[in-house]
Formats: sequence, structure tokens, C-alpha cells
Amino acid sequence: MSFTPFNGPLLSGLIGDMQIAQQFSIKADLAAMLRFEIALAKTQTEFDVIPKAAEKAIADLGKSFEPDMEALRTGVIQDGMAVPDFVRQLKAAISEPHAQYVHFGSTSQDVIDTSAILRLVEVNAIFEARLNKLEIHLQSLAEKFGAQGLMAQTRMQQALPIKVRDRLASWSRTIHKYQSQFADIQTSLNIVQFAGPVGTLDKFGDIGPDIRKALAKELGLGDPGYAWHTDRSTLCEYVHWMNAVGSALGKVGQDIVLMAQNERDEIRLANTGGSSAMAHKKNPVRAEILITLAHFISVQCAGFQGNLIHEQERSGAAWTLEWMLLPQICVATGAALNNAITLVQSIESIGSETAI
Amino acid sequence: MSFTPFNGPLLSGLIGDMQIAQQFSIKADLAAMLRFEIALAKTQTEFDVIPKAAEKAIADLGKSFEPDMEALRTGVIQDGMAVPDFVRQLKAAISEPHAQYVHFGSTSQDVIDTSAILRLVEVNAIFEARLNKLEIHLQSLAEKFGAQGLMAQTRMQQALPIKVRDRLASWSRTIHKYQSQFADIQTSLNIVQFAGPVGTLDKFGDIGPDIRKALAKELGLGDPGYAWHTDRSTLCEYVHWMNAVGSALGKVGQDIVLMAQNERDEIRLANTGGSSAMAHKKNPVRAEILITLAHFISVQCAGFQGNLIHEQERSGAAWTLEWMLLPQICVATGAALNNAITLVQSIESIGSETAI
Amino acid sequence: MSFTPFNGPLLSGLIGDMQIAQQFSIKADLAAMLRFEIALAKTQTEFDVIPKAAEKAIADLGKSFEPDMEALRTGVIQDGMAVPDFVRQLKAAISEPHAQYVHFGSTSQDVIDTSAILRLVEVNAIFEARLNKLEIHLQSLAEKFGAQGLMAQTRMQQALPIKVRDRLASWSRTIHKYQSQFADIQTSLNIVQFAGPVGTLDKFGDIGPDIRKALAKELGLGDPGYAWHTDRSTLCEYVHWMNAVGSALGKVGQDIVLMAQNERDEIRLANTGGSSAMAHKKNPVRAEILITLAHFISVQCAGFQGNLIHEQERSGAAWTLEWMLLPQICVATGAALNNAITLVQSIESIGSETAI
Amino acid sequence: MSFTPFNGPLLSGLIGDMQIAQQFSIKADLAAMLRFEIALAKTQTEFDVIPKAAEKAIADLGKSFEPDMEALRTGVIQDGMAVPDFVRQLKAAISEPHAQYVHFGSTSQDVIDTSAILRLVEVNAIFEARLNKLEIHLQSLAEKFGAQGLMAQTRMQQALPIKVRDRLASWSRTIHKYQSQFADIQTSLNIVQFAGPVGTLDKFGDIGPDIRKALAKELGLGDPGYAWHTDRSTLCEYVHWMNAVGSALGKVGQDIVLMAQNERDEIRLANTGGSSAMAHKKNPVRAEILITLAHFISVQCAGFQGNLIHEQERSGAAWTLEWMLLPQICVATGAALNNAITLVQSIESIGSETAI
Repeated sequence: MSFTPFNGPLLSGLIGDMQIAQQFSIKADLAAMLRFEIALAKTQTEFDVIPKAAEKAIADLGKSFEPDMEALRTGVIQDGMAVPDFVRQLKAAISEPHAQYVHFGSTSQDVIDTSAILRLVEVNAIFEARLNKLEIHLQSLAEKFGAQGLMAQTRMQQALPIKVRDRLASWSRTIHKYQSQFADIQTSLNIVQFAGPVGTLDKFGDIGPDIRKALAKELGLGDPGYAWHTDRSTLCEYVHWMNAVGSALGKVGQDIVLMAQNERDEIRLANTGGSSAMAHKKNPVRAEILITLAHFISVQCAGFQGNLIHEQERSGAAWTLEWMLLPQICVATGAALNNAITLVQSIESIGSETAI
Repeated sequence: MSFTPFNGPLLSGLIGDMQIAQQFSIKADLAAMLRFEIALAKTQTEFDVIPKAAEKAIADLGKSFEPDMEALRTGVIQDGMAVPDFVRQLKAAISEPHAQYVHFGSTSQDVIDTSAILRLVEVNAIFEARLNKLEIHLQSLAEKFGAQGLMAQTRMQQALPIKVRDRLASWSRTIHKYQSQFADIQTSLNIVQFAGPVGTLDKFGDIGPDIRKALAKELGLGDPGYAWHTDRSTLCEYVHWMNAVGSALGKVGQDIVLMAQNERDEIRLANTGGSSAMAHKKNPVRAEILITLAHFISVQCAGFQGNLIHEQERSGAAWTLEWMLLPQICVATGAALNNAITLVQSIESIGSETAI
Repeated sequence: MSFTPFNGPLLSGLIGDMQIAQQFSIKADLAAMLRFEIALAKTQTEFDVIPKAAEKAIADLGKSFEPDMEALRTGVIQDGMAVPDFVRQLKAAISEPHAQYVHFGSTSQDVIDTSAILRLVEVNAIFEARLNKLEIHLQSLAEKFGAQGLMAQTRMQQALPIKVRDRLASWSRTIHKYQSQFADIQTSLNIVQFAGPVGTLDKFGDIGPDIRKALAKELGLGDPGYAWHTDRSTLCEYVHWMNAVGSALGKVGQDIVLMAQNERDEIRLANTGGSSAMAHKKNPVRAEILITLAHFISVQCAGFQGNLIHEQERSGAAWTLEWMLLPQICVATGAALNNAITLVQSIESIGSETAI
Repeated sequence: MSFTPFNGPLLSGLIGDMQIAQQFSIKADLAAMLRFEIALAKTQTEFDVIPKAAEKAIADLGKSFEPDMEALRTGVIQDGMAVPDFVRQLKAAISEPHAQYVHFGSTSQDVIDTSAILRLVEVNAIFEARLNKLEIHLQSLAEKFGAQGLMAQTRMQQALPIKVRDRLASWSRTIHKYQSQFADIQTSLNIVQFAGPVGTLDKFGDIGPDIRKALAKELGLGDPGYAWHTDRSTLCEYVHWMNAVGSALGKVGQDIVLMAQNERDEIRLANTGGSSAMAHKKNPVRAEILITLAHFISVQCAGFQGNLIHEQERSGAAWTLEWMLLPQICVATGAALNNAITLVQSIESIGSETAI
């Protein structure tokens, strides 16, 4: 039982996902935060809100800036988030007269939320590829074994004979459904946060919305048209989507665990797990892990969807809780997809040749 | 602390919703089950699957059938659901040669799931009307008090002055967003379940899908194109939507509770609650209850979204759990909408005339 | 899918418990509230806090008082709880000079919390009797079938042969453990709430604690020694105990469902459930329901243990949520105990006579 | 939003706890696993179950053994846990005739569960010290400010004046209650797991229980008297205790956040947090974080208490989920205790000198 099994050296191979976790590293976070500040300066220059020279100074800094991590750490302890000290460091590195234009008219939540979205774009590209891969392997399975016989089971009792393709279809259809929803989920999710300290962009008068729109474009994101400092609906829809995917893969795991019971012997898996005490054991480890990950995702998703009340113009308590849940959900979803691909590939046979 | 506050005689006025609860009464359930069986017979006659005379016998029975409730109750204890004994009673009331065509090629889950959907159609019409009403009252509030000043609060501390309309916009926008999603949610949700004992409609050969399509039309529902015995995604999306609505209303309640603090006095409410011990108390009861209902919905929603793994062709355990959660979520959502409407109407003033 | 399956006419036979639900009826609640007010008056007379004549008037009223339910209902909608109008009705029925001594120095939460505890005493006596019964049936099972052989299963794969008594011991030990903890749980739980409007009993000066102690004795409860208006720890420990019991019974259900699979056939059950479509089905319904109820209890328990932060001197929002969760947990626990007893009694054989 | 805020370089200062996390490092885990195997060999030698020379070989190995981490990682991916490859490596390092006596009669779960307990002993010693420290600081606060006046608040509205000591007592009493329960919680928790592959210690005939008892003593743990492979009650009670502590600290945070509102100004805090946009902000960051951590712990606790059904003799899926939840709960509880101590120390004044 090791802490953060996700990225520990041992369990991460099974229930972690280094590729996804990388997007939530502090390095990736700071890079995205810097990207936001540079894009903001660039956009504001276009609108003559800040001087061109300031934009250049900020862009130049972006090439060389190495944050003082110890100071950032102290800043987080003090302020509850990295942005205030991060901005202070940026300003110190630029010095006046340009420093005053760093982070101009923005607020910490603009930076942190947009940084999260920029990295979720990368995460979701990985998910997309894995979903495609999984679908191909499921299809290949159907081609190979679809015509074999299987006893349908309802309420955990034998019902009537079906074909293997019927069972596989119940897996594939759900996974395909979620995959086909994913583009819309991402379009909703991939929006900039830029609203200023109290969500009104007041500092910019009438052109606030135009700046937000241009900033969104600069970052390759959509323009929500409003402040979502307290409206966490798109994040929540994304989390629900991951829960749905996790559960669809969990069903694959659950069905395989049941089929793999020695007395049923309806599936053959390569690469099953051994025991420290019983040499004959062939534990369907990856199928079990799909169940575990589905439950883990559901637990964290429950936390996220129960945390939608962000009071007044910004909630410190509810917002911070998101940071503790969302990355874990993404990593567990990534791990589930990896496990599902490996598991489906490891199926050597399924169902029975003889009619049931 | 009374059991089932929803429909008890006292608390139901506040945290219950008799109008919604009615759709989950056993009477409404049995009526919808009967409607399914009659529509099924009618459809199957069109496809020459059952004789016209059988359809007539079943349709006639529908006008007079009074189920033996005691036998149904015993049947549920035995079978875990009402359908087997319900069908037995229908068959007994019709007698052969027609009885054999009752519930023909169908399965318990077809009846129970479709019955639930037919009643959710009614529930959602009520939700729709209340959402419209709430939006009108929020708009009226913005017209009356939108120009007044309010101190924005971030991380529970005074930030900068805003207008009341800014705070109201953060409420309305989210509610409006969910309202605008509702048509699509309902289109996905309103599908027939008709798949037979193991989800394959095998009994009907090639015309199974056509019968399902026609049955859907007969019931005013959509044709999913497949069995959703184990794919609970549309129900889950609906539950998530209710959680989102509940939380959006919970935020309204939370913000009002904070504004109504005596030391802040930023809002005046009519019809506040009294205390048994302190005559001066003006408790913002309906605002508190919106928070309570939001949390209650989130708890039940967590249960639903953590219950998506339905093993093999039908899960007795996971399916039954849905029956214990979904109705409660609907009733609590209905209660939250009612409370929100009354609360928003009770606002006598909000914000301050003087510039902050 | 009927609302409040617990007490609806059909599903309540399986997943409800009328005997437990009765303790949460409005009738039982009002009776316990009245009992509190009468005991309070009696105790306060002993301490010369209120006149003897007032106590007599209140005690006499107790024999005949019929609350105006419609007024109570309106009061709940206004005040968020029944006590203010309940007290108003009591005072009106008594009239001055005695009316002023009704509910003297008390507060709504004193009445509601104590009423809940008084009824949980009855609930727990029922649980206690059922646990004893279940233990006897499990012991009888061990005596009949303990020596038979069974294949142990680890990670859902055959491990090594054991005896039926080994499996049964894993069930009984946990249940027995919780049963042996139950007396302590009840001692902690069975305490009076009497603390006055802000938890300080200030109205009574130095003798406040003595009055509370005497009131506790009068009601057959313990004296906590403090106000637990915001300290919900004993309720939470009780809820956790019910979750533990529910899960222990859920494991019995889960193991039986797995053993009852046709391909394993390690257990024979009487009274299995039928299908509306497949005459051969023998669904292990009560075992499935034990799993369902365990999950249901866990969901509600999650809500309760996530609701322990009661802000300041009394939380309207968090307290009301308790009323929506606790009764359901009690009823589901009662239903689980009933199902477990019936299920264990229905076991006709378990394991195999031949050595494995 | 960085992954695993607990041990990332930035957020760990606020919502992480390096001292607790260290006990869940892979290094600490492997050390405890090795300690189990050495103690097992020592105990078995005392009972003449394995040769003295084998024990010496195993003990000697313990001084120098450096596990092949890459092989372990591969083993985990294959077997779902580290023990099979860990034991293989130990055996390879010792070679025959002694190798056969490594891990003799034991099973993976014996090693993993006992390793977890051995490290929780260390974790709990840290908790104990922090609880003592917190109590001292709360007492000091009561001494300094207890006599000041404060307006009690019920249902988020002004009630009646109390003293600061009344509010502080509601915090301290609950914390003290949990602290006083902690010794019993630890006694129950600190038990050895030693039961062999199917929980029966069959390999050792009649002396199995004696070996378990001696092994427990050797490791400084208690003897449960049975296999708790599927009985997770003591872990669950421990998790519930952490949730109770987290919520008690969360209430302190919630109350302070409310008192610190500018319009109430009932508390002065040193070291408040700044904003990137508003220089005047004094955000009560540590108080907010206590609320965040309380909710985070509740979410994970919900996952744990909903995962008590471990099917048959060992559940791969449910057991693995524990590894993903328990360490996080411990670290968050540790972080909450640290934050509470710092926050309470940072209180410069509370309440008002003038009578209210």
C-alpha cells in the first residue's frame, strides 16, 4: 500500500498513467500559466490596452523565465495558490515600466483555470487515440469470435444462448457512444477563462468581451462569452463523461472476471497473474483492475459533482477541492483505457464453438 | 425526523413534491405497465405476430383490469419485481387462447424500464414549466434591482463593487444553460425498452427491430435501436442534469443565506422562518433548504453514477438500486424548483441604492 | 419504479421495513415530541423552575392533545421545522398563566433531536432481536453443513479446498463483531438533547446541567454533559455501524449469488425468483437484494458522514439533510436484516459432500 | 492544477504532508514487507516449522537486500501486487535449501496488510502528537480570549450573545472526544495479518494460531485471532475516525471563515493570503483549506466505506481500491492537523471586548 499509487514506481504500471500524469506536473502547469500570460499580453497589445514594448518584454521573458520554486512554494502556503507569487516573480524579472502590464486586468482564477484547460486538451488527445485503438481491438475480437456461442446470464443465472457478438456488442456500443459524444464534450470544455477579479472585466470597459474572444483564439480555445469562475458545469460534464467511460470499461472487466471463473471457463486470457502461495492461480488481474478503476473514478466523480456550489464570486474551498480530484480522475481514466486495450488484446478465446 | 419526509404529511410541504411523487405512485406505475402491454399487443398485431383477436382481448382488459395488489406484493417478494405476477394476472384475466399473447417476446425489464420512461415524460413537463417560471421571476428581479450596488465577495472576503445584475447573471446563466440542454436530455431519455429476455429480440427474427420501432412510435417514445438493459447512460445523463440543476439552485440558496446575514443585510426576504425560542429570528429557511436539497441530490446522484456496471445481460442488484435512487432525485429536484420559485418571489430588496 | 419503495405497497415487502418505518411516522414523532415537553415540565418542577400547577396542566394536556396537522404543515413550510407551531399549539391549548412554562428554556433542536433518539431506542431493540435471530440461523447452518467441502476462491479464481464452516465463519464473525459493539453504540447514542437556543442553558444559571441530567433520567436516556447541537458524532457512529452491518450482510448476499451460479451450483435455495419470460430461471433474489441494500446504505451513509460540518451554533441546512438520510438508513438496515434471516433460512444445502 | 497536490513541489506545502506521505513511499513499504518476512521466519523457527539455518539466512539477507525495482514493477503489472515477485527475488537471493522457507505458509495479503499496519503505527504516532499540540493551542486561545463576547449564530442568523469560550468549547470538545477514542482505535487497528492462502493456516495444523500470536508479538502488533482478509472493519473504523477528525477541523475552518467576513470582523488572523489582482485582500486561506480537506477526506471515506464487500476468500478488485484511498485519507488528515495548528496559532484576536 504505497502512497499515490498513480505515480509511485510500482503500482503506476497498473493503476497509473505516466503519460497523463505528466500533463499535471508542476512543469506543465507553470508552462501553461506562462503561455496564458504571454497570450494575454499579445492580445491586449492588439487592442492597445498595453504598450507593444511591454508585450515584447513579456514574450521575451517567456523564453528564459525560470521560476524560483522555493518562493512559489512559500507563496502557495501563504496565498493558497501559485499565481500571486508567480506574477510577482514575472514582474520582478521584467521590471518597470513594463512590469505593470503583466497579468493586466486578470485574476488568479483566470490563469489557473485556463492552464488546466490547455493541458486537458493534451490529455483528451491521448484519450481519443486510445478509444480508437480500443474500438479496433474490440472489432477484431468480434470478427474472430463473434459467431461462437455463449450462455446469456441475467440476474447472475443462466438465461438463454446468445452469440459472443451479442455480448461484445453490449460492450462496444456503450464505448462507441461515449466516443461519439467526446467531440462535443471537448468543444464545451475547451474555453478560456478571462474575467478579472470579480468576473466583470470592468477594467476594459466595452471591449472586455472582444479581448476575451481574441485571447481565446490566440490560445486555440473557445470563447465562453462569460465568466465561469463559479459555473463549473463544463468541467463537471467532462468528469461525468470520464465516469461513464470508466464504468463502461468496468463492465468489460466485470463480465470478463465472471466468464474467467474456473467453473465457467468461457474466456482464455494470456498474461494472467500469479500468486505468492498458489502456483496454479491464473488471476484475471487486468479485468479486476478495470473494476477497481471504475469504482475509484466514481468515488472521485461523486466528490466533483457534489462540489458544484461555488459561493458568491469565487470559492476558495470548493475551487481547491477540484484540484485534488480532477487530475486523479484523468489519470485513472487513462489507466483504465490502457488496461482495457491490453486486456482485450490478451483474449485468446471467448465463448464456445459448439452450439449451446 | 420523520421517515420519507418527501411524502410525509409535514415536511413534504418543504422538501417534498406531491406532484412529482404522484408519478412514482404504484398506481401510475401499474397504469404505465399496462399501457406498455397494450401497445405491445397492438404493434405485434400490425406485424402479424399475434392474432388480432388477442390484441382486442388485451386492449379490452386494459379498460377494466384491477390488479390483485396482495398477489402482486407476494410476487414482488418472490421475484424481486412486479412483472412476473402482473403478467400472470393479465393472462389469468384473459384466458386462452389469447393469454399466450400477453407480454409476447418481452421481458420484465422491458416493462419496468419503459414504464419509468413514460412517467419521466410527465415529470419533465413539470420541470420544464417550473424552469420557465423561475427564469421569469429571476428576470423580473434583475429588472427591479439589477442596477443596485453589491460588494462582490471572493474567497469569502470583500473584493470590489459590482451591480446586483452581475450576481443575478451568475445565477440565471447557469440555470438557463441547463434549461437549454433539457430538450436534448429528454430526447435521449425518452426511448422505449424492448429487447426480450436476453436483449436480442430473437423470437421475432428479422422484424424485431421494426417491431421495436413501431412500439416506440405507438408509445410516443424514440427507438434507441438496441437493448439498453445494461447500458444506463441516458438515465445517468438525466440524473447528472438534475444534479446540475439542483446545485445551480443550491448556489442561489447559498448566496442568499450569506447575503441575509444580519451583519451584511444585503437582501430582504418576506416569509422568513421563526424560532421556538427567539422571537427576533428571521431564518432564511427556503434558502437553507435549497442547500439541503442540492446536497441530497448530489448524494443520490453519486449513488446512481457509481452504479453503472450492470453485469452480463441483466443485473438484479444494480437495477434494483436504481429504483431506490431515481424517484428520490426527481422529487428532490422538483422540490428544489418549487422552493427556488417561492424564494425568488419573496425577495423584497437586494443590494444597496447607494454606490458602494 | 415506484417512489419510496420502502413504504409503497409493493416493493416494501422486499426492500422496505414497515416495523422500522413506523418509528419514523409523523405520529411517532409527535408523540415523542410531546413526551419530551411533558418530561421537561416535570423535571423543571422538581427544580422549582416552573410552578407545579403548570406541570400538571402540561401533563394533563398530554393525555388529550390532538395537534392541528394542517397548521403544523403550514408551520413547517414557514419555519423549516414543526416545533415552533407545535409549541404554539400546546401553549394555545393550555392558556396562561401556565402556557408560558411550556418548552421553557428549550429550543427546537432539543425537541427534534431528543424525539429522534427516543425512537431510535425502539428501532435498535428491533435490530438487536433480528441480529440474535440471524446468528442462531447461521449457527444452525454451520451445524448442518459446516463439515461439507467447498472450493475457496481468491481473486475470483479457485484457490484451495476449505470446509463450508470456514466460509460461514467469515460471515458470522463479522456479524457477531458488530453485534458485540452494538451495546456501546447504543449507550453513546441514547442521550438527551437539552441545551437551549444557543447551547448554553443560560436561562437556568448554575442548575442547567442538573436539570439536563434529571431530564435525561426522566426520559430513560443518558446525559451527554454538553450541547450536541453541532456535534453529530454519536449519530455518525451509529450510521457507520449500520453501514458495517449492511455490508456484512451484503457480503453474504454476494457470496451466495456467486455460489448459486448454475455452473458452480454450490448452494441450493428455496423460494428463488421467477422470470416473466424464462420458466427455468431460479433467481437468487434475496441475495441480490442484500447487495442492493448494502450499496443503498453506503450511499446514504456517505451523505451523512460528509455532512458533519454544522456551522456556528446551529446549521439549518446540514441538520435538515440528516432528516432525509437517517430514517432511510435505518429502514434499509432493517430490511437487510429481515432479508438475511429469510435467505439464510432458505438455504437447503451448501457445499459438497465429496471431498474436493 | 497539478497532479497529486499532496506530494507535488508546490501545493504539498498546503494540502499535503510529506511526513505522513513518507510512510507510504515504496521504500517504507518494502522495508515493512521485509520486516514481516524476517519476523515470520524467526517465529516459525521458534515453533520448529522451519530450520534455524533458514531463519539466519533470511535475517542476514534482510541486512543487505536491495530489490530489483524494474523486476518488481513488471511483477506488479503481471500479478496485480508486488509480493509474488518480491518473494521470488528473496528466494533467488538466498537459494536452496533455505529459499523454500521464505514466506512459508503465508500469502500476499498477509504481507501487504501487515506492512500497511506497521506503517500506520508510525502515522498514528504523528497524528497523536499533533492532536496534543492542537489541544494546547486551543486551550491557550480560550485562556486569552474566552471571556470576550461573541454573537451566537443559529441557522446563519444572529441568535443571542455568548462568550468566545462557548464557541471554542464546541470546537475543543469534539476534537478532544476523537482524541480520547484514538487509543482504542489504534488497539483494534494494530493487528497482524497472517492467515495463509485461503485464510485457514492449514499448513500448520493445530499450531497455526500460536504462530500467528507469536508473530504478532514479534512485530509489536496484536493478534486478531482470525483472518481478516475479507473483514475490513478495523480499517474502516480507522477511516471513519479520520473523517470525524477532518470534519471537526473543517468546522473550525468554516466558523473562522464566517467570522472573518469583513462585515463581521469577529476574528483577526495573521498570515492571511493575498490576491494577484486585489491588494487589499486578506483571504483566510488556511481556514478555507480546512473545509477543502474535510470534504476531500469525506469523499475518500465514502469510497472506503462503500467498498466493504470483499467477495469469497479474497477480493482483488475491492482490495486494490483500498490502496488508492487509504493513503490519501491519511495524508489529508495529517495536512488538516498541520493546517489547524498553524491556523489556531495565527489567531490574533477573537470576539469583542465590549459586551454584546
